[in-house]
Amino acid sequence: MRHDRRVTEHFDAVDVIRTKRDGGRLEPGQIDWVIDAYTRGAVADEQMAALAMAILLNGMERDEISRWTAAMIASGERMDFSGLSRPTTDKHSTGGVGDKITLPLAPLVAACGVAVPQLSGRGLGHTGGTLDKLEAIPGWRATLSNDEMMRQLEDVGAVICAAGDGLAPADKKLYALRDVTGTVEAIPLIASSIMSKKIAEGTGALVLDVKVGSGAFMKDVDQARELARTMVDLGTDAGVNTVALLTNMQTPLGLTAGNALEVRESVEVLAGGGPADVVELTVVLAREMLAAAGRSDVDPADALRDGRAMDVWRRMIAAQGGDPDADLPVARETHQVLAPGSGVLTSLDALKVGVAAWRLGAGRARKEDQVQAGAGVEMHAKPGAEVRAGEPLLTLHTDTPERFERALEALEGAVFIAPEGSRPDLLPLVIDRVG
Amino acid sequence: MRHDRRVTEHFDAVDVIRTKRDGGRLEPGQIDWVIDAYTRGAVADEQMAALAMAILLNGMERDEISRWTAAMIASGERMDFSGLSRPTTDKHSTGGVGDKITLPLAPLVAACGVAVPQLSGRGLGHTGGTLDKLEAIPGWRATLSNDEMMRQLEDVGAVICAAGDGLAPADKKLYALRDVTGTVEAIPLIASSIMSKKIAEGTGALVLDVKVGSGAFMKDVDQARELARTMVDLGTDAGVNTVALLTNMQTPLGLTAGNALEVRESVEVLAGGGPADVVELTVVLAREMLAAAGRSDVDPADALRDGRAMDVWRRMIAAQGGDPDADLPVARETHQVLAPGSGVLTSLDALKVGVAAWRLGAGRARKEDQVQAGAGVEMHAKPGAEVRAGEPLLTLHTDTPERFERALEALEGAVFIAPEGSRPDLLPLVIDRVG
Repeated sequence: MRHDRRVTEHFDAVDVIRTKRDGGRLEPGQIDWVIDAYTRGAVADEQMAALAMAILLNGMERDEISRWTAAMIASGERMDFSGLSRPTTDKHSTGGVGDKITLPLAPLVAACGVAVPQLSGRGLGHTGGTLDKLEAIPGWRATLSNDEMMRQLEDVGAVICAAGDGLAPADKKLYALRDVTGTVEAIPLIASSIMSKKIAEGTGALVLDVKVGSGAFMKDVDQARELARTMVDLGTDAGVNTVALLTNMQTPLGLTAGNALEVRESVEVLAGGGPADVVELTVVLAREMLAAAGRSDVDPADALRDGRAMDVWRRMIAAQGGDPDADLPVARETHQVLAPGSGVLTSLDALKVGVAAWRLGAGRARKEDQVQAGAGVEMHAKPGAEVRAGEPLLTLHTDTPERFERALEALEGAVFIAPEGSRPDLLPLVIDRVG
Repeated sequence: MRHDRRVTEHFDAVDVIRTKRDGGRLEPGQIDWVIDAYTRGAVADEQMAALAMAILLNGMERDEISRWTAAMIASGERMDFSGLSRPTTDKHSTGGVGDKITLPLAPLVAACGVAVPQLSGRGLGHTGGTLDKLEAIPGWRATLSNDEMMRQLEDVGAVICAAGDGLAPADKKLYALRDVTGTVEAIPLIASSIMSKKIAEGTGALVLDVKVGSGAFMKDVDQARELARTMVDLGTDAGVNTVALLTNMQTPLGLTAGNALEVRESVEVLAGGGPADVVELTVVLAREMLAAAGRSDVDPADALRDGRAMDVWRRMIAAQGGDPDADLPVARETHQVLAPGSGVLTSLDALKVGVAAWRLGAGRARKEDQVQAGAGVEMHAKPGAEVRAGEPLLTLHTDTPERFERALEALEGAVFIAPEGSRPDLLPLVIDRVG
């Protein structure tokens, strides 16, 4: 861990705001100062809010965003994995419904000889959080000391744990501010927020999974491509070998959305089964992560097939106190949604399924809320499949059956069934690659 | 006094911010709610700062600005002069150097039969404040109760006093926020700030003196015209007969900038003398104020000439405890600036003279500061005049001679002398009229 840089110059907050307001470029010294002063409280929330709005509306150049990111990294500690015996690689997803990919992916990549230090978060809103999912496993704990993390990376090769408070505290403060001031949707601020944490985390290589579609933050491919390009540039400027995939989030990933439900599906994938899209995306991302770390020579599909990934999974869960053989929690109540007609399922909306899972108890509305381990939505068909009227389409799971009504409301219009023989025009799983 | 409107609808602050951020129109209910909630503290400073920046960059339509202004008026009390036996009219200046016009103007208009309820402020920065000037008169007090104000308007016809805290408290809070967040320079926000106070003040007619030039807030004629147009529209929409003049602030008004110095010059004007530009602007504005109140039939030049305006001045000062015959304070020290060459004075920069007067002690840097009554700059020539090398051009006044050095620094480049026989291309005193 180290602190990066001391800020000694002094600027005036109003001058900095005016520069960006009037469409100008922020100087490196202005950026260093404003981030440092904001973290210390010398620049007030209302000043940073005005600056964030000016950035949202007037943009930032590549070198401004790089400097902004570097200043956020410098606001806290920075991890250093250079002492490990193997290279490191990491993945970040911008968040989607049913996106459990980290669970099979981290052990799979570790099984191929590259270490994965995955610092994750909890879910807020309709997209789930990786830590919430793993906490469905009895005994598993998300919080590790730096020493424990280092030792696990050396011994097991993969760790998924909570990010400490010391990484990019400026980002933490700024993110909370953006959330209440309508300034979340600025690509320079989204990109620098994600990348400051990932770069501070100290990974040598990084693969970004930028989700596109109804269930994703980015609804449109061009915007997603711009975000991907911006983040890849930031990683490159910071010396992290970075690549991004744009992937489909029109419909949920796999057949489950919910914490224990997704752990179960992930274990199926590690066991050589599981839904085709989850398997495909896991292998594609593993290949990218390995290639970014200089290991294009190994094929992760082998490590999935021959059980090596499952071995790492079991050791990874056990190292954090979890019992990989324990029964996973099951929700007390279920409710089935039947297909309203026969034909081809052409749409199963990711956002609506995500909101339904959230309302069933799988997610939280406020940071303080508890999640239900067993709650969520199980899907029995995916777009492109033939369905018959009256057959089960979805199973809703919750411990609190009074939640079914609002979950069903969220699902209104989520499903579209076209006449038999229709061929829906579906986006591919991997839409584009930005490298 | 009355409170105008209750806000009962509820909106989400982030939705309101996003609407304006994305270039949309704020709905009337959104505007009423956000101003009310901000005044109550339910919308946070950082949220209003983000909204103000979005307004600055994306603008507001005429009806949005009208509603915004009405909501700020509704945040506080509103004065009502409908019980007076004569009509009311008022003037507002956007602020300039040597702008003492209110002092002769209010008694002049009152002498013509129309009441002038002038609520004024103190100076901050390089432009002086009317109350600071009048406080140079021994015994004069700026604070009146509403009853005292009403009685003086009925008896004397003119009152110049401090605005109470109850008028447009939303504006007070928003103005302080804009000052620290780089959002002062938004025409919709400037216009609604000025007009909310003037409309709440309850005047029946209003003349705006929008200053243009180096010593003014608006440096350029087109911007000043846009501000004037916006304010005239706001007044009109609120049922106040409103007109605006764009007037020259490239050079100071009259031959003095400083509190007691300007009172002395104003008294000269009321006595039938004084600098030509001050006399001209006073009479032009008086005609507009009288016309806006429906009294185009009286000529204020007569009331200035025959001493009626001076009579009202003496009664107005005495009614507020001042002694109109008292000697005015004189600064302890003076310093003369001599003409560096012979020729035609083509420029005497308003901003530089204003900053010099401010640094000599005539103005304040922070709200808490005291001003020196005697401090300021006396000018011995105005642009267009012939000057001779070594003759006095300016006299600087202060009680604290250590201030001369920084005042002289401020005056660097303030004066330009062209060869004899040159004809400087000067802006007219009244540049345009917006009605």
